[in-house]
Amino acid sequence: MNMRDFDHDPLIVGIDAGGTSTRATLLTRDGECLGYGRSGSGNPTSAGAQLAGESIVDAVSQALRAARRGIGEIDHVVAAMAGHGAGGEERWLVDALAVAGYDGALAFESDLLALYFSGTAEQDGYAIVSGTGAAVIRVSGGRLEATTDGAGWLLGDQGSGFWIGHRAALAAVEDMDGRGPATALTEAVLDALQVVPADFTLGYGRSAKLEGLIRTIYLGRPVELARLAPLVFAAAGEDEVARDILLRAGELLAQSFAAVHRGPGPVVVGGSVLAQDGLLSGTFRRLVRDREPGARFIPVADGVVGAAALALRRAGAAVDEAGHARLTASVAAARAR
Amino acid sequence: MNMRDFDHDPLIVGIDAGGTSTRATLLTRDGECLGYGRSGSGNPTSAGAQLAGESIVDAVSQALRAARRGIGEIDHVVAAMAGHGAGGEERWLVDALAVAGYDGALAFESDLLALYFSGTAEQDGYAIVSGTGAAVIRVSGGRLEATTDGAGWLLGDQGSGFWIGHRAALAAVEDMDGRGPATALTEAVLDALQVVPADFTLGYGRSAKLEGLIRTIYLGRPVELARLAPLVFAAAGEDEVARDILLRAGELLAQSFAAVHRGPGPVVVGGSVLAQDGLLSGTFRRLVRDREPGARFIPVADGVVGAAALALRRAGAAVDEAGHARLTASVAAARAR
Repeated sequence: MNMRDFDHDPLIVGIDAGGTSTRATLLTRDGECLGYGRSGSGNPTSAGAQLAGESIVDAVSQALRAARRGIGEIDHVVAAMAGHGAGGEERWLVDALAVAGYDGALAFESDLLALYFSGTAEQDGYAIVSGTGAAVIRVSGGRLEATTDGAGWLLGDQGSGFWIGHRAALAAVEDMDGRGPATALTEAVLDALQVVPADFTLGYGRSAKLEGLIRTIYLGRPVELARLAPLVFAAAGEDEVARDILLRAGELLAQSFAAVHRGPGPVVVGGSVLAQDGLLSGTFRRLVRDREPGARFIPVADGVVGAAALALRRAGAAVDEAGHARLTASVAAARAR
Repeated sequence: MNMRDFDHDPLIVGIDAGGTSTRATLLTRDGECLGYGRSGSGNPTSAGAQLAGESIVDAVSQALRAARRGIGEIDHVVAAMAGHGAGGEERWLVDALAVAGYDGALAFESDLLALYFSGTAEQDGYAIVSGTGAAVIRVSGGRLEATTDGAGWLLGDQGSGFWIGHRAALAAVEDMDGRGPATALTEAVLDALQVVPADFTLGYGRSAKLEGLIRTIYLGRPVELARLAPLVFAAAGEDEVARDILLRAGELLAQSFAAVHRGPGPVVVGGSVLAQDGLLSGTFRRLVRDREPGARFIPVADGVVGAAALALRRAGAAVDEAGHARLTASVAAARAR
């Protein structure tokens, strides 16, 4: 507990800390969003603890400035982050916030639970995300009860942007060395990776072009293959191999959903892969409706509103259906300012 | 050409340089193996050029010592190595051999072509290898004409030890998070990777055991997953998931074979994966025989004899059927000494 006196009810901060960007909302106890801030990566795994702490403090400071408030007026900070469940303090963030002058309560929540509560106030349902990675959660009684996949590029992320981009690279290699069918993805992948054209065969029986592609890909980090995913969406109109990749990705995401599915509930949907209409998301939705005919899909752009809702809950001001609608509108207004 | 005088015909050296070990044979022009040497990695990609050069010189020196000959008596060195075709000198190996006192001819050959000629003297046929990686070649008129796969763990090596081990890890992850069927591979993989047992669920809905497995695997290099391949062979008697992995690996290897297949010819088979009798190699052979009913499979342990045959060919002393049998026996005798 914070021992200071407040002129009015102390304020609350919700943080949606991602690998690319971090977003903070400054909230009153009745769910009004007074300020919004945005900064770089707030994930200690991808950015390092030092930089992640600075990003979070930066986003909070922006939200405070936007509302002309001081950090001493806050008594609850909740940070939603990948790889975290409902949990207490962690030194790196306690320290970063202390340096900025904050000594109130701090708690962590799952980024996927924040995504879920960005879409709904219901206490039982599902969230699925497919961006660079892919994961599904089941929410029960407002808590994250089970996770499927989210196992990373080497062990899972089935149906994710990485998975799709990796399949594009494999399709190009298999086309070029005769194991797979001809596909428009081959030229698209060679172009995208700027492999220098060369029309001769090397001494060990591989074309110089294929060798160039293989070398280029191994020079990068595997996850960078996610960059090739848009090529598959672009080619799907004309190319059967591309279509098969998207169809399979939709099936795999539905399979991950099936692994956590236990009964009715809204399906909150996030990430760039499922945001695109077409074969992939159509396949996913069709297969989910095979299990749950009345399934409601709620697309969301990020976990900002949900992180705010989780922060309010932590501060003892849980958000009901009507409150969720007000919170959503208020956060949108603060972001637009 | 070497300008020195020789008391007798100059000698020839064939080198089979692998990522793990390097083997050298010292040969007379009529295909008698006078000496044999063995050392560490002779592949500049895996060991670095310095160490690879030292390994090769070491293996050659051992072969010379075994035969009580000097390096000045050699006039042809041929090194068979992954990623090389029939090609000329490369600085790192020219230099390493020069330091040891060698200034004769040097040439490179494909390690897969050496594998092929370890099994046969025929000038048209196929070689397939499945060890940590996997690749297939077509040999035509004694030259390597086409390669399929060999694209490495991220882009190919389908049906290889890596591929099988990776599938074991995926099967364990999918079993544990509910996406896949129960399999004996799960406990086997957890045991092999010494994941500490823990029977609780983390805040974000993943079991501590699964989290431990995922973290352990990401701490290592992806290719180390090849270590898990033996677990799949061991479990296949009792476990359907393991059996499906081996069946699929056999199909993928047959598919790579089909991509280079153009007509009859011996099929030389190398690598630890195809060396094991059972479902995988049975599936591979059955599918190859579907294409070529009379296919002859010739298992070989390594490329030593083939590297020797390629060295003899370079020196103008090509090996016929009878010569190949004599060379094989002579190399075996030198190795046994």
